Parts: sequence; structure tokens; C-alpha cells
Amino acid sequence: MGPACARRPVLDGEVHDVDAFKAAFRRLAAGVSVVTALHPDGRPAGFTATSVASLAAIPPMATFNMARKASAWPAIEQTSHVLIHFLGVRNRAAAEQLSLDASERFTGDHWAPGPLGLPLLNDVPAWMVCRIIGRYPVEESAVVVVQIEDGGLGDPDVPLLYHEREYWKPGDRA
Amino acid sequence: MGPACARRPVLDGEVHDVDAFKAAFRRLAAGVSVVTALHPDGRPAGFTATSVASLAAIPPMATFNMARKASAWPAIEQTSHVLIHFLGVRNRAAAEQLSLDASERFTGDHWAPGPLGLPLLNDVPAWMVCRIIGRYPVEESAVVVVQIEDGGLGDPDVPLLYHEREYWKPGDRA
Repeated sequence: MGPACARRPVLDGEVHDVDAFKAAFRRLAAGVSVVTALHPDGRPAGFTATSVASLAAIPPMATFNMARKASAWPAIEQTSHVLIHFLGVRNRAAAEQLSLDASERFTGDHWAPGPLGLPLLNDVPAWMVCRIIGRYPVEESAVVVVQIEDGGLGDPDVPLLYHEREYWKPGDRA
Repeated sequence: MGPACARRPVLDGEVHDVDAFKAAFRRLAAGVSVVTALHPDGRPAGFTATSVASLAAIPPMATFNMARKASAWPAIEQTSHVLIHFLGVRNRAAAEQLSLDASERFTGDHWAPGPLGLPLLNDVPAWMVCRIIGRYPVEESAVVVVQIEDGGLGDPDVPLLYHEREYWKPGDRA
């Protein structure tokens, strides 16, 4: 390490230093997904996620993380299937709407019932029908593991990115 | 959905259709991280990851996914701590090297022993000392849950992205 790289300790042993943790994670960019499900009474549930990650290709599996205080958790906790949508830049408004208060997320015509009656967002580049195969509670959060059973591709788009609390487009090759 | 969005089924109920699964996931972009650890005999282990995700801020926790056939799994399986590095565009060569055959990943001066003797990559925008608090095997893979105990920030950089099997820089705001 040269002296040009001045390392400031950010977390410094303070495991509850939320600002420091967030400072580090703000330096990671993420692709933007939306996870949808149905509450037991049939109401749509969903949220914008930056935690969807591939787990394996054989069998095809993925994970996402969420707070168990989230409005969608009662649905995720009790249902068998979710839809995961990968958002393109043209879906930015949907990403924002699925981040609003739960009562506002499904107001409008940006979605319709899709496979298994699950809320399917319009015009996304890719979506997957996922069976929940594991829910691992950790403190106040949970890791959810899914197996992909079906899905589809829409028109291609460049992927929507989230970084530094803003949405971005990809640029040039690095 | 208008007719302009021609949905081709990609997974089509074939849960082992690896190409279709990959086609969907190629439409997700991801930030690039490197996870490092020590084998029980002290040799460095590590890999380039696109699965690192925040789990919670209080306490600060994150997850990453990996194959249990990966060269680094014996280290991750048996050790208490890992370093997670968030890579910037200036770290592209390190991202590529940590994706090579395991025997080549730590050849060179792109790293040095860091906190707890863990391999610390030079000149990354952010890194975190993480205690492993959960390992959840799923089929041939595993979800690893960590609590962030310490960390640091290097010089800022734009985050390195991975998408469509290539490295990218972020572009404009979406």
C-alpha cells in the first residue's frame, strides 16, 4: 500500500456504527430487482431489492435478503412462490414505486396478475417464478433462498443500477 | 403488456435449464467484491464475488453465496473471519486475478497480510473485517452470513460492475 491510500477506519470495532457500515456499502453498486408475492388474503406484496444474487445454476437457485419488519415479510413468510423481476433502466419508475409506503406500491397499471396469480411488473427485461425453499431468520432480518421454476425474457434493456442512494445506468466497459 | 414485449419463455419449467437461468441472470448487473480468508495451514484463499449483499445495518450484517466445490470453501468452512473488499474500477486486474485458478490468485504484490493476518487487497475503496455467523448449505452451494466487526475506506473510486460476463463502469444517473 502506498501512502496515497490513506485508510480511515470506518467501523473501528463499533459493530453498531450504522453510518460507518453504510459508508462502506455505499461504495458497492447493485443491480435492481423487484420481488413480488401474495398475502394470504390475496393482496399483492412486493419490494425493490438490491440483494438478489445467484446461488447456483444446477439446480437454478437465488437468494435475497429482507427485514422481517418489512411490509412484505408476512407474505414472504407464508407463501410458497415469489416473482423476481430484474429491472432495466426503463423500469426506474417501478423501482421507485415499489420503494414507497406499502399502500402505494400497487396503485396503478404498472403490473398485472401473472403466473400463479403473482403480481407481474410490466415490460421488465427478465422475470423468474421462484419457489421458496429456505427462510433463514438472522436477528431482525431473513435470508430467503429460492429455486427458479420458470420465467421469461422481455425486450432487452440496460440494467438499472443503485449506488450512493441513486439510480444509475451502466457506462463503458471497465 | 403491449405486443411489443414478446415474452419468450426461458426456463419453461425445466429447472435444470442452465442456459436459460444464465440468460435471465445476465440481465442483472452486480457490484464486484473479493472475499478472502486463510486456510487452516495459513495459505491465503479468496475469490471474486458478485453475490455480496447487505442483510441488516443493526447489527451490520451481509451475505455472500458460493459453491461448496470452490477452492476457497475449505477455508470459509473452517475459519472464523473473512475480509470482504468492495472493488473500484481501478481494481479490475485484481478482480480478474482472483477469478483465475486458485494457484494463481495470490501470486504477486496486489495484496498483503491485513487485520487478523487475512489477505488484504491493495488500494480498494472499502473493506470490512467480517465474522462468520452462519453457513447454510443448500444443494452443492452455501449461503454465508457475516457480521461486520471492523473495516476501512481507501481512496474513493467508481464501483466496478459485472454484467453480461464483462466488467463495466457506471455511467449517468438513470
